Amino acid sequence: MLDYKLLEALGAVVDQVGFERGAQALGLTQSAVSQRIKLLEARLGQPVLVRAPRIAPTPLGRRLLNHVQQVRLLEHDLLDHVPSLGDREQRLRIALNADSLATWWSEAVAPFHQQQSVLFDLVIEDQESSLKRMRDGEVAACLCTTPRSIQGARARPLGGMRYRPLATPEFAARYFANGVDRISLSEAPAVVFGPDDRLQHRYVANLGVTSPFPHHLCPSSEGFYLMIHAGLGYGLVPDLQARPALESGALVELESESDIVVPLYWHYWRQGGNILEALTDHLTRCTEKWLTDLKGFDNTTGIL
Amino acid sequence: MLDYKLLEALGAVVDQVGFERGAQALGLTQSAVSQRIKLLEARLGQPVLVRAPRIAPTPLGRRLLNHVQQVRLLEHDLLDHVPSLGDREQRLRIALNADSLATWWSEAVAPFHQQQSVLFDLVIEDQESSLKRMRDGEVAACLCTTPRSIQGARARPLGGMRYRPLATPEFAARYFANGVDRISLSEAPAVVFGPDDRLQHRYVANLGVTSPFPHHLCPSSEGFYLMIHAGLGYGLVPDLQARPALESGALVELESESDIVVPLYWHYWRQGGNILEALTDHLTRCTEKWLTDLKGFDNTTGIL
Repeated sequence: MLDYKLLEALGAVVDQVGFERGAQALGLTQSAVSQRIKLLEARLGQPVLVRAPRIAPTPLGRRLLNHVQQVRLLEHDLLDHVPSLGDREQRLRIALNADSLATWWSEAVAPFHQQQSVLFDLVIEDQESSLKRMRDGEVAACLCTTPRSIQGARARPLGGMRYRPLATPEFAARYFANGVDRISLSEAPAVVFGPDDRLQHRYVANLGVTSPFPHHLCPSSEGFYLMIHAGLGYGLVPDLQARPALESGALVELESESDIVVPLYWHYWRQGGNILEALTDHLTRCTEKWLTDLKGFDNTTGIL
Repeated sequence: MLDYKLLEALGAVVDQVGFERGAQALGLTQSAVSQRIKLLEARLGQPVLVRAPRIAPTPLGRRLLNHVQQVRLLEHDLLDHVPSLGDREQRLRIALNADSLATWWSEAVAPFHQQQSVLFDLVIEDQESSLKRMRDGEVAACLCTTPRSIQGARARPLGGMRYRPLATPEFAARYFANGVDRISLSEAPAVVFGPDDRLQHRYVANLGVTSPFPHHLCPSSEGFYLMIHAGLGYGLVPDLQARPALESGALVELESESDIVVPLYWHYWRQGGNILEALTDHLTRCTEKWLTDLKGFDNTTGIL
């Protein structure tokens, strides 16, 4: 069998992004951890870690960590039957989009966490990167907009997140008094999450504008919302996040053809053990409370 | 003089993380942009872009982009005097910590944005990486916890963010009924932002615990707060973010030696032009509304 002490050292250094902190997490000295990783590399005849500019696993290292995570999930199932074997601490690493994390995710998983002793390692990623992390074995599950599952995994639709084009009443009066059109959209600053966020582009495209438009960049869901709330720009905000401000009148909805809906699919390893299966069942049962039914959804326009 | 058409192409491809989108942003064809970058590399005799796994500037490319950003800031000053020269669109790229962005930042810069036609490119970074980005010229300013400025830049103290150890009343009753001590802290899951977030470590260390403790990882300010709010763990939350929940009783403060305060310093390029100077003045004038005075602050314990 593999020497899991060595693999555990690798996992700790990668998780903590450093030898010193990795050693601390394991309760070992830094030199002990360093020796374990050297021994692992000597046995394999290949490096498992890139040291600079930032500590990261090599493709081989990643494959090993993937394996360790799977073994841990299986161990957890075993502990259900033989509790005396060890401690029950169990980590599930999951990639998800920032807006889910900033809105419904915690409330949805809280009841599951009450029953199951599980710790979440959450990673924020856009859809393409999430699936790559699944393939590399860095995460056991992910939430993304692609329905097609990757090899070794399954995908289940959870529902759609509804987005509304919003701004403060003052911002709307200043820029959109004559309507939302080519001219006003070329003047009014939008807020865009990052280069991978195409929601604002899709919104202006649905209104017939394909040229570049002025925009701030703000890669934080809460920051994005607060920029709009402070009148720095307009943008597409998840309905779940915007409701109180819409009700109080602090934000108003801009003209639009229709709301934009982003579909969310839950991807998870087939061999991920009982706890991942249980979380999958839990999510598919409870998310309709926050997410919209995807019947009739048009993937090209994002319009439901 | 340098051929700024070529440098602009480089900037667009890097900003948009792709040739196709970079071309779109400039209103050019993809092949035109590609040719400009090839020409730039041929003239320099060195690559300016890394193509895989993700498009990124080489160190030389970064130096060029740094220069372009500085030229743009200077151009903006010129346009104050000769408005007919061109359009006034001006971008300021700034790195800041996630918690500032999730709390006071937008409200603080909103009045500045009303007066100055500026678009913000915000980047979320912990302190070490922010200063590295300043040095590499990727950002014109940053907000971080280090008082020492880097070469070519100045640093000004803005104030401290106060953090409180919080949990739901149910969570506190379940785990901390007998007090916050070594035993309860080894059982109760904390929420930690990421490997670089040492706030929770500092909190338990101030209570005499130096061994590892169970924790979730959640690299999003709002997600972090919502995990605590949903009862998944305890953690240190910015006072600004927690106040409503503390007042309503949805969250309670755990025992602690004292609140933890994180000092924030504004670092900015000396040659960053008038608009960066004006933003600096604005921030140093207005942030006392949200941030705590740093007199008497102890950098080792984080206690004020």
